[in-house]
Amino acid sequence: MQHTLPPPSFLHELAEIAERNTLQTYLHHEKMSIDTKIHEGLRFDPVTNADRETELLIRNKIQECYPDHAIMGEEWGKVAGNSPFEWIIDPIDGTRPFICGLPIWGCLIGLYYNGTAVMGMMSQPYTGDRFWSDGQASWFSGRFGERRMETRKNVTLDQAILHTTSPEYVETYPNNRFDILKDNVLMTRYGGECYAMAMLAAGNIDICIEYTLETYDIAALIPIIEHAGGVVTTIDGKRPEQGGSAVATANPELHQQVLKLLNTER
Amino acid sequence: MQHTLPPPSFLHELAEIAERNTLQTYLHHEKMSIDTKIHEGLRFDPVTNADRETELLIRNKIQECYPDHAIMGEEWGKVAGNSPFEWIIDPIDGTRPFICGLPIWGCLIGLYYNGTAVMGMMSQPYTGDRFWSDGQASWFSGRFGERRMETRKNVTLDQAILHTTSPEYVETYPNNRFDILKDNVLMTRYGGECYAMAMLAAGNIDICIEYTLETYDIAALIPIIEHAGGVVTTIDGKRPEQGGSAVATANPELHQQVLKLLNTER
Repeated sequence: MQHTLPPPSFLHELAEIAERNTLQTYLHHEKMSIDTKIHEGLRFDPVTNADRETELLIRNKIQECYPDHAIMGEEWGKVAGNSPFEWIIDPIDGTRPFICGLPIWGCLIGLYYNGTAVMGMMSQPYTGDRFWSDGQASWFSGRFGERRMETRKNVTLDQAILHTTSPEYVETYPNNRFDILKDNVLMTRYGGECYAMAMLAAGNIDICIEYTLETYDIAALIPIIEHAGGVVTTIDGKRPEQGGSAVATANPELHQQVLKLLNTER
Repeated sequence: MQHTLPPPSFLHELAEIAERNTLQTYLHHEKMSIDTKIHEGLRFDPVTNADRETELLIRNKIQECYPDHAIMGEEWGKVAGNSPFEWIIDPIDGTRPFICGLPIWGCLIGLYYNGTAVMGMMSQPYTGDRFWSDGQASWFSGRFGERRMETRKNVTLDQAILHTTSPEYVETYPNNRFDILKDNVLMTRYGGECYAMAMLAAGNIDICIEYTLETYDIAALIPIIEHAGGVVTTIDGKRPEQGGSAVATANPELHQQVLKLLNTER
């Protein structure tokens, strides 16, 4: 890399902005204004006032400090830059659990260099968790301070814990054999959103599969998982930076097994 | 009621014991020892050292302060009493999310009087949330202090948010039409365990359905939901104290609609 990465402290500055704004809305549900975005195939795709406002504040901070960097966000689209760096922002990943009051949504801020994910921050403002990558993967919790994260390097498929957000999304991806995979793991969990990806980096979950992802849903999580020792690709084994689908696993051997099962022919 | 209820402060004393012990194990996953309980139909039913130890400490405190009360717990069974009161304990409801590191499990402590749920406490030690009932339903959060909880009194079925823990459990209950119900609500979420029931009391979720429940999975939650204005019964409309299934809803009108849809004939 010819250009210097921003310091991790800048990720924390952005996280602080994200946390302050999203948490205010989360704590006062009565002030939450919920709109529905119209997409094909999804009956209810909510967006709140907090999503829009928070992304603007993060974008302003980036433009102030790194005016030549490109920016792409879920709510306010793309701004071209004049450098190989591009910030990818999802102010509230998991707007559904955000609305439900389930503290497993997150603020996602990722950085690409020539299209490859190189730094990422996920923050969960209610629990006070921050997960980020800067060569290694780290977890700050108000409960135990800072801790390095590592995936489970030796976990086998039959002992693995599998996660996906919703069984309904599984059906949107043609011919993937989630059913076979599910029959070969220790247990399957639903509904964990980006917090489940962080728990994969932390070694508590071993396989996360997500469908119908946008770039901003996965960007920040890629380096966190990779720097913790995990592997993340699309279901067809390609780099995950452009979204579509994501398969994250605890180690390369497990990854090969999971991709093979998911792509079993009918 | 001829006998005096214990003060709410006693619920908080018990919650403190539960929180201290479960949190220590949750924060140090490497020290967690996981066993599998053998049941028909469930391949992996985990129990940790934290479940067993915590329940013992809670039972000791109850026996010290209320020696004539009966006690029933998930891990250490039933002790008969000499009064109409019976404590129902699930030290870790949601052992699966506990293992995965998802902060939506809870410590459940309920009190029955002649078999009817009269007081309850749910605590989530990682987030620092406590939800309890003493005539009204209350939520203490480190983020905003104490707040009274109320269900959404006027929510209609088409605007309702539905929750169940796992799509796999739905299939264990013969002929219930979760599929029809799902098609008639605004959105369906999975994986929230007892935290989703608390969010129903708080007015953020409107319908929670759980299958294959034991008494200790629901006991503490019944008065929290009822005192917040919600309704909770089994799928066939009976009192929920003995478990089996649970349908919790935000208001009586919604409850009737939900039961009717769930029991639609094929």
